[in-house]
Amino acid sequence: MEQLLPIFTYIAVAASAISGALEARKHEMDIVGATTIAFVTAFGGGTMRDLLLGRTPVFWVIDPGLTVTTFVIAVFTFYRLQSFSNRLLIFADAIGLGIFSILGATYALQRDISPIVAILMGVITGIFGGVLRDVLSNRIPSVFGQSTELYATCSFVGTSVFVLINSIPAINTLPASLIGALTVFAMRLLAVRFKVTLPSP
Amino acid sequence: MEQLLPIFTYIAVAASAISGALEARKHEMDIVGATTIAFVTAFGGGTMRDLLLGRTPVFWVIDPGLTVTTFVIAVFTFYRLQSFSNRLLIFADAIGLGIFSILGATYALQRDISPIVAILMGVITGIFGGVLRDVLSNRIPSVFGQSTELYATCSFVGTSVFVLINSIPAINTLPASLIGALTVFAMRLLAVRFKVTLPSP
Amino acid sequence: MEQLLPIFTYIAVAASAISGALEARKHEMDIVGATTIAFVTAFGGGTMRDLLLGRTPVFWVIDPGLTVTTFVIAVFTFYRLQSFSNRLLIFADAIGLGIFSILGATYALQRDISPIVAILMGVITGIFGGVLRDVLSNRIPSVFGQSTELYATCSFVGTSVFVLINSIPAINTLPASLIGALTVFAMRLLAVRFKVTLPSP
Repeated sequence: MEQLLPIFTYIAVAASAISGALEARKHEMDIVGATTIAFVTAFGGGTMRDLLLGRTPVFWVIDPGLTVTTFVIAVFTFYRLQSFSNRLLIFADAIGLGIFSILGATYALQRDISPIVAILMGVITGIFGGVLRDVLSNRIPSVFGQSTELYATCSFVGTSVFVLINSIPAINTLPASLIGALTVFAMRLLAVRFKVTLPSP
Repeated sequence: MEQLLPIFTYIAVAASAISGALEARKHEMDIVGATTIAFVTAFGGGTMRDLLLGRTPVFWVIDPGLTVTTFVIAVFTFYRLQSFSNRLLIFADAIGLGIFSILGATYALQRDISPIVAILMGVITGIFGGVLRDVLSNRIPSVFGQSTELYATCSFVGTSVFVLINSIPAINTLPASLIGALTVFAMRLLAVRFKVTLPSP
Repeated sequence: MEQLLPIFTYIAVAASAISGALEARKHEMDIVGATTIAFVTAFGGGTMRDLLLGRTPVFWVIDPGLTVTTFVIAVFTFYRLQSFSNRLLIFADAIGLGIFSILGATYALQRDISPIVAILMGVITGIFGGVLRDVLSNRIPSVFGQSTELYATCSFVGTSVFVLINSIPAINTLPASLIGALTVFAMRLLAVRFKVTLPSP
């Protein structure tokens, strides 16, 4: 599992960078705006996780490959992606949400943080990049609107599933992680597909 | 005093969680939005303080009880609090403002930070949760508007009173803390009651 | 060079405090808003740099003179500066942008961070104060708008120039720093003067 963490990180960063650059295009920003939003979306959640846990220098500072990857993806998505597709944005965002959630909980558990805080750390790591992306685009983060389909809830449920399965001694961390990330991912796509929202008071 | 710090933290976190959830209801957010705003308001100031001082993992990561408390309060305030009252919001907010301001200065002084920076740390700890709450609700933080009653000023005055009294060798930290927190609290309520604002240029 | 870092920091902090207070006046905030925006603009970039690199307590916590300087400048700019001039705002902002960019890269290189991440750290340190200033004023950060003249780009180019020159063994850090900062500064003023923007997709 240890060796797979960087790979998962790269996938989540790449997916988030795409979603960030697409969102910037929607808002008619220039390439600097698009790159910045891509970086913020890709690095935001993991950075917050590392700061809160005291893991500094943060993850992308010590691995320059992540910066290069995000930069290349942002420029490509901004200039070359012909058909803008809202579906791609939701898909890429859901991948990032799923993997980052599990990574957040994993690093917390590695530090002997209690399970309930590990779940919270998973949710923060999962959603924070997207929240920053939306705040910088100057609108109420979509995750908070009453008309929004389940978002943080998917991260919460999937991370809880991961922490629960992971606590069973007989089960390895890897299958637990995959099940957790897939739960977040599938739940998010189903919520968007069937417009599932939470009840209002 | 040392043993009382966690108790003060719980009171301030609980009060801020109430104010966050009430603010979210005002803005017609769903339960996820309300919970998030409650967490951000309750944890924001102390988290910023811990990060700036290098006290990591931050305070709520190492005490899961704070997460449970905030979650329960957010859900209860959102679904069960019958009569929404603006007065309750201001009251809860003022309690959080008062206690967090003193806690911020206290932890700074414990690290041998100079008194003037300790006062600034108090103000940051006191107001930052509310600033985040307002930024996430997508409006200019009320603390900055010219028509707003004194807010950061109350934190500044009360924290200065605390640092001043605390520097007198004959006086214990506990009475200094209580006087400081009460100064912030009372000054804030009076400012709202009598609509006291600062002079414009 | 080591001994000059605090001096550069003071100049950048002072210039950013002026730009923050002027921006607050534009938005009709009160003195508390102006002071807060001044602090956020002056301390934001360097704070983010220190947090990401794990240099805590952050720079202004251990040097109370920076707090006093920023406070005095904010109050003076808000109440006493007679003729509000947009040119002064751009000038002060460009000074802060130039020096903070180089300081960010310098501290990163001191920690043996790779050059590409050091450049990114320079850009973050340079622009983050201004981004926070704009977010708190509740508008899309000017740095992201398509109609904005080059901003982050100036920081990126100047920091790259610095890192490049600095990597030549025969050249000292001081001249490399000055050339880098002047590149950012001059490029920014020229971009504003001739309304240079980036191409849209």
